[in-house]
Amino acid sequence: MMLRQPLRYLHRFVKVQRQSAKQVDLLTTRVKQDAEAREIICRAANTDSSSSEMSPLETSEQSQSSGRGRTFWTIVATMVPVVVGVLGYEQLKRSGTATVTASLPQYAIEDVMQHNNTETGIWVTYGTDVYDITEFVDSHPGGDKILLAAGHSIEPFWDLYTVHHKGEVKEILDSMKIGQITLVDRMRLANRTKHDPYEKEPARAPVFRVNSLKPFDGEPLPHSLIKNFVTPNSHFYIRNHLPVPEINIDTYKLEIKIASKPAIVLSMEELRSKFKKHTVMATLQCAGNRRAEMSEHKNVSGSISGVASISNATWGGARLRDVLLYAGYTEDDAEVKHIHFEGLDNDIAKEPYIVSIPIEKAANPLGDVLLVYEMNGKELPRDHGYPLRVIVPGVIGARSVKWLGRILADSDETLSFWQTKDYKSSPPTPHTGCFDFRDAPPIYESPVNSVVCEPEPGEVLQPVDGEISVRGYAFSGGGNSILRVDVSADGGKTWHSADLHAQEQTPYRTWTWTLWEIKVPVLENSDKVEIMCKAIDSFHNVQPDSISGIWNLRGFLNNTWHRVNVSTTSNDNQ
Amino acid sequence: MMLRQPLRYLHRFVKVQRQSAKQVDLLTTRVKQDAEAREIICRAANTDSSSSEMSPLETSEQSQSSGRGRTFWTIVATMVPVVVGVLGYEQLKRSGTATVTASLPQYAIEDVMQHNNTETGIWVTYGTDVYDITEFVDSHPGGDKILLAAGHSIEPFWDLYTVHHKGEVKEILDSMKIGQITLVDRMRLANRTKHDPYEKEPARAPVFRVNSLKPFDGEPLPHSLIKNFVTPNSHFYIRNHLPVPEINIDTYKLEIKIASKPAIVLSMEELRSKFKKHTVMATLQCAGNRRAEMSEHKNVSGSISGVASISNATWGGARLRDVLLYAGYTEDDAEVKHIHFEGLDNDIAKEPYIVSIPIEKAANPLGDVLLVYEMNGKELPRDHGYPLRVIVPGVIGARSVKWLGRILADSDETLSFWQTKDYKSSPPTPHTGCFDFRDAPPIYESPVNSVVCEPEPGEVLQPVDGEISVRGYAFSGGGNSILRVDVSADGGKTWHSADLHAQEQTPYRTWTWTLWEIKVPVLENSDKVEIMCKAIDSFHNVQPDSISGIWNLRGFLNNTWHRVNVSTTSNDNQ
Repeated sequence: MMLRQPLRYLHRFVKVQRQSAKQVDLLTTRVKQDAEAREIICRAANTDSSSSEMSPLETSEQSQSSGRGRTFWTIVATMVPVVVGVLGYEQLKRSGTATVTASLPQYAIEDVMQHNNTETGIWVTYGTDVYDITEFVDSHPGGDKILLAAGHSIEPFWDLYTVHHKGEVKEILDSMKIGQITLVDRMRLANRTKHDPYEKEPARAPVFRVNSLKPFDGEPLPHSLIKNFVTPNSHFYIRNHLPVPEINIDTYKLEIKIASKPAIVLSMEELRSKFKKHTVMATLQCAGNRRAEMSEHKNVSGSISGVASISNATWGGARLRDVLLYAGYTEDDAEVKHIHFEGLDNDIAKEPYIVSIPIEKAANPLGDVLLVYEMNGKELPRDHGYPLRVIVPGVIGARSVKWLGRILADSDETLSFWQTKDYKSSPPTPHTGCFDFRDAPPIYESPVNSVVCEPEPGEVLQPVDGEISVRGYAFSGGGNSILRVDVSADGGKTWHSADLHAQEQTPYRTWTWTLWEIKVPVLENSDKVEIMCKAIDSFHNVQPDSISGIWNLRGFLNNTWHRVNVSTTSNDNQ
Repeated sequence: MMLRQPLRYLHRFVKVQRQSAKQVDLLTTRVKQDAEAREIICRAANTDSSSSEMSPLETSEQSQSSGRGRTFWTIVATMVPVVVGVLGYEQLKRSGTATVTASLPQYAIEDVMQHNNTETGIWVTYGTDVYDITEFVDSHPGGDKILLAAGHSIEPFWDLYTVHHKGEVKEILDSMKIGQITLVDRMRLANRTKHDPYEKEPARAPVFRVNSLKPFDGEPLPHSLIKNFVTPNSHFYIRNHLPVPEINIDTYKLEIKIASKPAIVLSMEELRSKFKKHTVMATLQCAGNRRAEMSEHKNVSGSISGVASISNATWGGARLRDVLLYAGYTEDDAEVKHIHFEGLDNDIAKEPYIVSIPIEKAANPLGDVLLVYEMNGKELPRDHGYPLRVIVPGVIGARSVKWLGRILADSDETLSFWQTKDYKSSPPTPHTGCFDFRDAPPIYESPVNSVVCEPEPGEVLQPVDGEISVRGYAFSGGGNSILRVDVSADGGKTWHSADLHAQEQTPYRTWTWTLWEIKVPVLENSDKVEIMCKAIDSFHNVQPDSISGIWNLRGFLNNTWHRVNVSTTSNDNQ
């Protein structure tokens, strides 16, 4: 029984990204080459992670996209052995298995470290055990990020992306076990304490359904979500990708680099004083909103979001366009095609969260992209990017980078994992078994969507005059407004147009959601009701009827007709 | 048997627009009041319709939206009695029934003319017969345009909108017959010749499937449509609303009026010399494209278009923005919210075709709206708007007004029939029986769409290596590009991504379609294949699975998965 889950897991991904083997080779070679440089750039810990023993380097020195010559992979090769030491022994202590199993081969840590590319084979450790994951790399749902652990412990990554900490994932790993670390080396790992990268997370109101604790991914309950047109800061959905960084406002600087021009830096004080403050009301929606329904159709990867990974706020800050122009951008600059946003949130290898958007959105005076320091008139909360974040209205939340550290205007999109491998859609049946996410365009604007928030599934309702009350939200990306929301309680035989509550906005610049409500007649002779809703936006785009045609590997952008099943008691007027 | 059709026709519309009764009353009152002024403004014929005996007035004197005091209805009241005379006798001659049927009441033409509002009842004539259509007015599919004929002959309107010339419509009319015109009055109508408003149509290449002859609505055959990325002028679909006007280029003037500022006029020579010529490649698509499929689901009104009411061309002309600025428009002009485009094509009452678009599209430097005098490098053909038309890229063809005579920048949209009653969508089940099109927003940008053009339905194909070749187009309005086209030949179990052929364009400004092709595997053990296609656009909007959720009274914007049923012979490799 226990095997079913991991088998399904394997079956699902084993052929995905087969095509990316070439890139894996390339990256592996780079790891090998860069490993030789590892002594050169190892440095003392920086202030951001003062409790860490992992000797992290300063972000600005190591960014893959910084163009300063030192690659991300150099850092990985430098740091990971230390991490192996720290965490391997911790696991050893936890598991209580600090003995050697005689029947399995014994490997020194140095042996493991030699196996860091496809030629030698790719080995990792977990606790005291050694695994050969060479064959698995191509099918890893998280892409080739797994290569960060090549020759080292996998555990720091599992602690960062805690989705791995479940039985089925460990079972997959166990199927690749080839031996154990020698007893001598286990002792070398002693006397270290484990660092939890999430120990400095902010306090959160107890209002969220938690989809993932580390990194935090939480959404309010549906009925609570639509209580306010403007979501209170405490209830605004949170979807972090990495630990929330601690940022010292006194030393904080935003770096802005326009192509080949020299970079400039701005303090928060300068950002506030040099640029006019603009306020824009905008709804953010996670690309994974409604993933749970898609996952029910067929498994997807990613945290299983409900229907409330969406919220609406008024954002205050400087206009990105103004800051770009100040930093030297000109509209006729043919060099500049994409704007990269680099967060100060780092992964285990100090790789920051980076994504980019096209210049046509970033610098458009009608695009309303802001560098935001105020959320609903208050200082931006830590969970939402303190002290500075981007807001890209009409675009999936993932592009509205929090804890913004650096802006780069470049001729191409960023090559970061988050840009090139994540936040992309796949065909509904990648049947050839080799879908390469690099072939898919990034998701920016999101399609028209609508959701029933009240009642919630399973509720028992008493119709009044043969009708039940239904409420929800609708939203469309790209500045499109909602023209109509249709609601049915008889399987789509009849549709009723809901009353809409929206913010008046300029055509093509409607960045906010629409809340709606309606009383819908229910059939008299049935105590089971399926409520359905669907919206139409100002481009007259509509929601698809069913999931089969839009299902995708990562479970993004589920915008099918929303269906909620409830029961009814007898009509009170009968 | 013959009754079935008219009954369905009546059943379909009888309750629609019940709510507009108020407006009917209002208009009827206006007709009555304005009739008193009829002698004042009757004038000699103008040059545009020199063969007509109907004493038409100059367009600029009578436009409903011209704000010059004389209303459209004044003209109607003035002109229609003459028309009655002309056409009533013609019909009498055609039918050979120039005798009085003793069993029916006899009415003088003056009697009929008294019945021109809801208080007196609304009567019309057809041939020698008199009809009381009072009860029918609210349910007329063409809206209250039918009131133009109140008290007069219906025939000039049927000759203009020739969709009426079919048995089922005449049967509906006959059900409302109340009498005949007196023999004396029939003689008064003698010695007149009938004017066909369509007698000056341009010659057309014999390449069209004709959806309507008068006004002309024709589209190329699907396989011919996708032969070229840029459609040759001779094959570009044509959808006219009224007769093609004959325009004298030497006397042609474009009038531009910016709100309360004085109007300016420009000759073609001035338009060409004063403004930089821009070229934009843009696909136009009729809002009624694919109406035939929607009509099969449930009857709709409008000419029954196939899948090829779409074409792509390179347009050359002045930028609308430049012309607006030249005429006195300024970006901070709070008076200006909509730009009206008035064609020189007139209906029987000399009411021109008028629609409008929001200023945010019209004056946007990135909106690429042009005043066009060249189509694919050649002089604009008469059928496509010679000498000048508007091109509104990314928006349904109806807004790209042909034979442009006047531009008005106003604080509101035009109140024309075409803007307020046509080119709008309704909910899929307007079940309350009283959907008022005035409540629906106008259609501007069109949603994502895709169509299989090869093979065509019913073809018999021989698979090669178990595959069949499929080709088609995809298009999305609003400047959105096509990211992917999925094709299935097994009922949607598996989807295959087609090869796309598109024009490289700037993000948010992709105004052209995408052509696509693919070889799709077919099941071995079946000789019936349903090919399906669906596209996803750059906002990640998708096509809906089925028609039931998007069906609407006028059959607009059918963008469901396209399905083509074919047969296959045995595989040639078996």
